[in-house]
Amino acid sequence: MIKLKTKIPGLRSTRILAGLKKKNGGWGEPHPLVLSGKGKGAYCEDIDGNVFLDFACQIASNPLGYNHPELLKVVSDYNKRFPLKYAGQDFTIEEHLDMIESILGISPGMNQVFLSNSGAEAVENAIKIAMHDRNKKKFTVSFQGAFHGRTLGALSLHHSKPVHREGYILEPNKELPFSDLAGDELQETIKQHGADAVAFVILEHLQGEGGYRIPSDKMVKGVYSICKKNGIPYIADEVQAGIGRTGKWWSFEHYGIKPDIFSSAKALQVGATVARKGFFPDEPGSISSTWGGGHALDLAVGMKTIELIKKHKLLESNRKNGDYIKKRLNELRLEGVRGRGLAIAFDLENGKRDKFVLECARHGLLVLGCGINSVRVIPPYVIKKDEIDEGIDVIGKVVKILR
Amino acid sequence: MIKLKTKIPGLRSTRILAGLKKKNGGWGEPHPLVLSGKGKGAYCEDIDGNVFLDFACQIASNPLGYNHPELLKVVSDYNKRFPLKYAGQDFTIEEHLDMIESILGISPGMNQVFLSNSGAEAVENAIKIAMHDRNKKKFTVSFQGAFHGRTLGALSLHHSKPVHREGYILEPNKELPFSDLAGDELQETIKQHGADAVAFVILEHLQGEGGYRIPSDKMVKGVYSICKKNGIPYIADEVQAGIGRTGKWWSFEHYGIKPDIFSSAKALQVGATVARKGFFPDEPGSISSTWGGGHALDLAVGMKTIELIKKHKLLESNRKNGDYIKKRLNELRLEGVRGRGLAIAFDLENGKRDKFVLECARHGLLVLGCGINSVRVIPPYVIKKDEIDEGIDVIGKVVKILR
Repeated sequence: MIKLKTKIPGLRSTRILAGLKKKNGGWGEPHPLVLSGKGKGAYCEDIDGNVFLDFACQIASNPLGYNHPELLKVVSDYNKRFPLKYAGQDFTIEEHLDMIESILGISPGMNQVFLSNSGAEAVENAIKIAMHDRNKKKFTVSFQGAFHGRTLGALSLHHSKPVHREGYILEPNKELPFSDLAGDELQETIKQHGADAVAFVILEHLQGEGGYRIPSDKMVKGVYSICKKNGIPYIADEVQAGIGRTGKWWSFEHYGIKPDIFSSAKALQVGATVARKGFFPDEPGSISSTWGGGHALDLAVGMKTIELIKKHKLLESNRKNGDYIKKRLNELRLEGVRGRGLAIAFDLENGKRDKFVLECARHGLLVLGCGINSVRVIPPYVIKKDEIDEGIDVIGKVVKILR
Repeated sequence: MIKLKTKIPGLRSTRILAGLKKKNGGWGEPHPLVLSGKGKGAYCEDIDGNVFLDFACQIASNPLGYNHPELLKVVSDYNKRFPLKYAGQDFTIEEHLDMIESILGISPGMNQVFLSNSGAEAVENAIKIAMHDRNKKKFTVSFQGAFHGRTLGALSLHHSKPVHREGYILEPNKELPFSDLAGDELQETIKQHGADAVAFVILEHLQGEGGYRIPSDKMVKGVYSICKKNGIPYIADEVQAGIGRTGKWWSFEHYGIKPDIFSSAKALQVGATVARKGFFPDEPGSISSTWGGGHALDLAVGMKTIELIKKHKLLESNRKNGDYIKKRLNELRLEGVRGRGLAIAFDLENGKRDKFVLECARHGLLVLGCGINSVRVIPPYVIKKDEIDEGIDVIGKVVKILR
């Protein structure tokens, strides 16, 4: 249960946040608490002893909640060795292969995986391997509202070995509408420039940062079939929506399609680029990562997460709990309630969103914004019905306060 | 002491490596062993029970060796909480501020730090903040042989919030020679295009991947003074050379200069972009990272590493041990012996390098290639004189075998 002992943020949190505001370059608007590591299930505690209900899940990075006994056991199983972090592509550890096999086990039709350090790096390697052999490429294709990571192009500063760079020329981007018109526009583009000019198409099958928007069946199937017909690599970005959050392992599965390449990270604990045979380049050194495949503990936690999702049938419960949450949010007459599984969002009036998120935290509920006016509701997969009710009650209360 | 129980690789390692060769997309030519987590100091053990002497240090990522008692204690201190990995820029933990303060404590003149997941991400954010307000930029400047990370530009696919992208246009790159002529070329460029056209200059003060080349005093001071005079941001890339490996905290300190911005990672355990006041953008969300500043254990290990380097005066011992290694390598009449502190390399004849690295591993010594024909000798900071001698003996033996 939510239990607030102090005004939010408490004194100790205030002190740390003030230090970070001054010294953390690029600091945005943080949530008004500093986590202590304590907590249980869907509840986490801050360093002032306040207990929050977490409908934000470390931006979908902590799918099984706080201090799960089986994950605590993984952590303590790894406490007698140092380092836990290796240069995994050069000096490998067994967990590297185990994780690859775990991922392939939930990814029918895929044959190879490259592990890296973040979602951005997972996407980076997806676009690299998609483009590697497309010598006539003129532009890349993504969608209105897309967010695929923040990396700008350190490789452009490179003057070391040619193999690090060969085939990796990032062409200008063409934006497709996030609507049923996408297929027609893609078809028109191919008519004008030829299919070989399209380096790849990349799509989030549930937009994260962009506002938890779900593409229509017509949109996805249209674009997908054009890609298939024309031999254009189709990349799914599963960094936020993957690993079961939407009630299936990967959000593209809701459309019955099979991408050529997809990216994963967040709930997986490490970055992963997953592809069908033939997409990864053969030249040694063409892609690599110092720490990729090398964090023994992160790998072990990610693998146990996959195992626990299977063991406790959490895909099913995510779908059921998600339907219940949407029903409850609709009862509050909130605008634009939408989502799949435990990836849910709703909309607020212009300019009210950030106040809403802050006010929820002051009432002990952690939620996150997305898009312009939307709020993410993304609880851990271990959430229970009465905990959902407790969170919805706070949402209802805060909506009233802000009216 | 090196102790080999099996042919290298042993049976168990062979099995894992075969699996990885098949399933790890982008797999290069791995070292012929799979690490077990066992080992002590400069020695590590593989899963077949062979003990190797490590002059490769997980590509400079494991500066204090295997199973250091004080680092083991850090790991076990963190074994009663889950998760260890947070969305650190949104839901912060105390270690985030502690790490920033640790870094600033060894970085005089710097005011702010942004934490991320890898060296590539540390460089990415360095170039972003350098360019952010330079509206007349026409190109970026780096050096012949430069390696600053492999990221290509996922941000180019972006159609979400403008703040994620504003000011971040990566212009074409100009390559300066890695020689005393660099300053003259930069000056000529400024004469032609104006200083405002230069987005930034980025330099490794000891090239890593590029071959452990050390820029001359004249080269660095020339380029630096031109940047200062013309208000061009000067970025030092310290991902591989930083955190004491060269006998100073940062390799640029050998030149008595103060960059505007620098990157760190590897030995630090997390990525860090460090800058003087005024370089980080003020707009919330302009730079961010889901896991940046959020891996409690990696942060704790990195901080303890800094603390132990101070406590055991390892900067001094790195300089002394490095001089001894160079003396011993010169006694073997190897070509091009060079380096600073424990960042040392030598050259082999054309085409012999990869065989040399493999043959060393078969004799129980781990070393790494760099550049075209060079071999890195980068032992842990805890290396002892008799361990150095043991490693040099293997190098001498393998040199003879390959002749």
